[in-house]
Amino acid sequence: MSQKNNEAVRMIPLGGVGQIGKNMMVLEYGDEMLIIDSGVMFPEDDQLGIDLVIPDFDYVKKNKDKIKGIVLTHGHLDHIGALPFLLKEINVPIYGTKLTLGLLEGNLKEHRLMKSSRLKVVNAGSTVQVGQFKVDYIKVNHSLTDTCALAIHTPLGPIVYASDFKFDQTPVDGEVADFHKLAELGHSEPGVLALFSDSTNVERKGYTMSEKVVGETIDDIFYRATNRIIVATFASNIHRIQQILDAAVKYDRKIAITGRSMTNNVEIARRLGYINVPDDMIVDIRDMGHIADDETVIITTGSQGEPMAALTRMARGDHYHINIKNGDTVVISASAIPGNEKFVGQTINQLFERGANVIYEDVSGVHVSGHASQEELKLMLNLTKPKYFVPTHGEARHLHQHAALAEDVGVPKENTYIAELGDVIEFREDKVEKVDKVQAGDILVDGLGIGDVGNIVLRDRKTLSEDGIIIVVVTIDSNGNIQSGPDIITRGFVYIRESEKLIEDATNRVKDALEECEEKGITEWSVLKKTIKNSLNNYIYKQIKRNPMILPIIMQV
Amino acid sequence: MSQKNNEAVRMIPLGGVGQIGKNMMVLEYGDEMLIIDSGVMFPEDDQLGIDLVIPDFDYVKKNKDKIKGIVLTHGHLDHIGALPFLLKEINVPIYGTKLTLGLLEGNLKEHRLMKSSRLKVVNAGSTVQVGQFKVDYIKVNHSLTDTCALAIHTPLGPIVYASDFKFDQTPVDGEVADFHKLAELGHSEPGVLALFSDSTNVERKGYTMSEKVVGETIDDIFYRATNRIIVATFASNIHRIQQILDAAVKYDRKIAITGRSMTNNVEIARRLGYINVPDDMIVDIRDMGHIADDETVIITTGSQGEPMAALTRMARGDHYHINIKNGDTVVISASAIPGNEKFVGQTINQLFERGANVIYEDVSGVHVSGHASQEELKLMLNLTKPKYFVPTHGEARHLHQHAALAEDVGVPKENTYIAELGDVIEFREDKVEKVDKVQAGDILVDGLGIGDVGNIVLRDRKTLSEDGIIIVVVTIDSNGNIQSGPDIITRGFVYIRESEKLIEDATNRVKDALEECEEKGITEWSVLKKTIKNSLNNYIYKQIKRNPMILPIIMQV
Repeated sequence: MSQKNNEAVRMIPLGGVGQIGKNMMVLEYGDEMLIIDSGVMFPEDDQLGIDLVIPDFDYVKKNKDKIKGIVLTHGHLDHIGALPFLLKEINVPIYGTKLTLGLLEGNLKEHRLMKSSRLKVVNAGSTVQVGQFKVDYIKVNHSLTDTCALAIHTPLGPIVYASDFKFDQTPVDGEVADFHKLAELGHSEPGVLALFSDSTNVERKGYTMSEKVVGETIDDIFYRATNRIIVATFASNIHRIQQILDAAVKYDRKIAITGRSMTNNVEIARRLGYINVPDDMIVDIRDMGHIADDETVIITTGSQGEPMAALTRMARGDHYHINIKNGDTVVISASAIPGNEKFVGQTINQLFERGANVIYEDVSGVHVSGHASQEELKLMLNLTKPKYFVPTHGEARHLHQHAALAEDVGVPKENTYIAELGDVIEFREDKVEKVDKVQAGDILVDGLGIGDVGNIVLRDRKTLSEDGIIIVVVTIDSNGNIQSGPDIITRGFVYIRESEKLIEDATNRVKDALEECEEKGITEWSVLKKTIKNSLNNYIYKQIKRNPMILPIIMQV
Repeated sequence: MSQKNNEAVRMIPLGGVGQIGKNMMVLEYGDEMLIIDSGVMFPEDDQLGIDLVIPDFDYVKKNKDKIKGIVLTHGHLDHIGALPFLLKEINVPIYGTKLTLGLLEGNLKEHRLMKSSRLKVVNAGSTVQVGQFKVDYIKVNHSLTDTCALAIHTPLGPIVYASDFKFDQTPVDGEVADFHKLAELGHSEPGVLALFSDSTNVERKGYTMSEKVVGETIDDIFYRATNRIIVATFASNIHRIQQILDAAVKYDRKIAITGRSMTNNVEIARRLGYINVPDDMIVDIRDMGHIADDETVIITTGSQGEPMAALTRMARGDHYHINIKNGDTVVISASAIPGNEKFVGQTINQLFERGANVIYEDVSGVHVSGHASQEELKLMLNLTKPKYFVPTHGEARHLHQHAALAEDVGVPKENTYIAELGDVIEFREDKVEKVDKVQAGDILVDGLGIGDVGNIVLRDRKTLSEDGIIIVVVTIDSNGNIQSGPDIITRGFVYIRESEKLIEDATNRVKDALEECEEKGITEWSVLKKTIKNSLNNYIYKQIKRNPMILPIIMQV
């Protein structure tokens, strides 16, 4: 490394701060850059019809040639899901653990990008050189196994990037987090330059419970169940799935897997050795009918009440192979992601209505979070003893709470930086500050369109969704004389059958307004359109207190 | 009462079971009926553009002449909000406590129904005769003061209706629930026929904390705050507001009230004597600028992040009088009602971003629920010792959990009835059973329209909200020859500017398809419309993976 010691290290968040999702960070030192993660976010309620949200890659595109590689922390979609879009812009080596890259492969294959991608496996506990940067992969616990924190070494000291972690003292695979490495970084010289740490659960006191506790609860449920058992969980929660499989084997129940992502992930995890279960315990879901109910378990997707997922279909009564019946035990081994509460609640209600005994997070210990609670966050701060601190993986409320927590632990207030998307955060020996702002934000993906849905389209969708649309069509000749119409067509507004009078009156109002124009000799289309709108807007609102979109269309023959 | 002792008592839920909201129950004995509560429900996310949901009054209309009165338990909108709609169908006396009717008055005035309504004040602890029925008003605790459980006496024994209650052993007004009355009913002869009890919080273990605890937390916040304090809470939570006022008086801070419902409710509660605060402590919000920040408190609406509420406007930065600034303490003294989590979260984020210190439920004890937890529910069961039990005020999951809890307490499984809307539940000396089903359900109110928005309109709104609309207009003459168009207009679909090519190609496809029709001499409009739809459907989906509504319009000149 040829740079002088007093040069600055810069970090630029393109996602994951001020929001939970689409995690992505650019690290700069000298002439080289590194990308950390590149994830998607699921759309907010008001982003109507949007499928995915990805980071704005403008800054990456402008600095294409400086980027030496992409380092991944783990395989959740909010960390790897935007890579298929990013790889259309740049092609650099991608580093990650075996399972991370295993999960990424599936994603890349769907986008036909597998062949052109350069994937490099890194084991937890080892170090990889990317350009001028040495990057340590440090084992941490999370709801997805093979997750790592990263220490990226710079002449000013290492940046520790611990987005998504918890400390589980009794993990399912027996591998605790690499406390020693974190401690070593903490008392190295010149010490950790900056810590970027997970703020998701900063509002929770104490420690996040061990995954083992969930295993015990699941074991207990299996012990008591006298009929069929159906368990829904996140398809990526490999340890959870292993614990369900263990219980199935212990109580001698054959296992069927259903739901596309569940089937895929179990297949990947078994192939890579992250899941162990005897072959003869797994059966095809179509053969479940031949086995006694008390000798079967179904592991399924749908823990979020997603409309098309397997458990949701069962609850609704339209799953191909499984009919929920009296005496079934259904376990939802997950918590509702914010925004999904209503969907999950509806699924639980429907399962109860079909006679199932439903066991879910609110009433039992069938789930633990994958993120660190307050005491673990403090431990991370105390182990790494960073000079600067940047709370990450959180909305504004989480970042502010995390900043306050760091202050409690002894990080001076001025050494904590609460970031916004696109901030160019510069770390120097004597201070951290924002030195610039680059283009960053949410790019909306709708079907195959990337970024072609923006505020105007969304505003229209919102208006349409609330009160529908009234279309007024009128045909005029070149002299401006009406040849046919005005005709009124509505969608999403009222039941026409019950509102014939309203539509008739509205049509007459438009007719009167247009005739007035005709008499006055007004023929400009823009004026005619405005006249049509004005004649309806107030009238409709007065009559029925709704504000549908009014769309005048003039055809000339 | 002339009926024989072995005649049946019937209860018909028209709301409030299998759902939280629009509570309404009809009680029948012999030739007389009584209505208990008549509330609204707020729309679900998928009920796009709907303002309110009210019960279906069909059964009430058909039995108009039998109804002797409406008895109200308390003044929350999910118990009284549908009365303006119900009173258009029937006009019978309405019974309730002073505050309940005070809150109802405001509602009736808005609908110009005050003059024609017959409101009868009943004090908690007293009994009123409605037709043949004696109805005891029994004091219970709730987040709204002056809430009662009802005991409606029938020859088979009293029905105890305790929808919405908790037991607060140290209530703010010093009035504990009337345990003695409940106990007396429990050991009377022939004993309580049936208990209808609140299932909202059946998933919570233990007891609901006392409102006094919130008062202590608020006092502590006032003690520590060095600048302005802004507190948001439910406008109907009179005791909470009183506690905030008490703290303001204690720490000598002038109080401004903002938000329409907050201003209204405080006015009503002060007039009726439920809120006490010296006149000179209250100031107009427009005069707050003249008072030092550390001598002011603002009490506001917006605890649910409602888009137009005062706190939400402050958070967004568009409140007329209040600008959030560094050092403000903002307290959200409420929990997010299911479905509102995202809105509340957004408000908290924005307040933090503006520099406020935000104190909210997740991180402190600034709120307690108004509903009983498990131990209180058990106490209610043990006090009243009902023969039959009907869990109410809950979704299916809550009703099932409450049934299990009742079984634990000793109610035989066959004596518990899990109701659905419209069930005619018949109680006899030896059994409870469903003997009939009447029309019941959700009537959607959108603006001034009641029931004119149904599944087709909602389905259209959903399609429009997700992918927008493509309108294809073509003018033909009487021979079926195209005179102008086809023109394509879209809304909520794509940015036209970025998708000119797509629209151009789509227009050409429609043109080709129509010309083919012309050549074949096809002139039926239905066939032409189908042709237009078919020519676009697959094409658009293939090109951009979206399914907008396609609306062909043919004009004839």
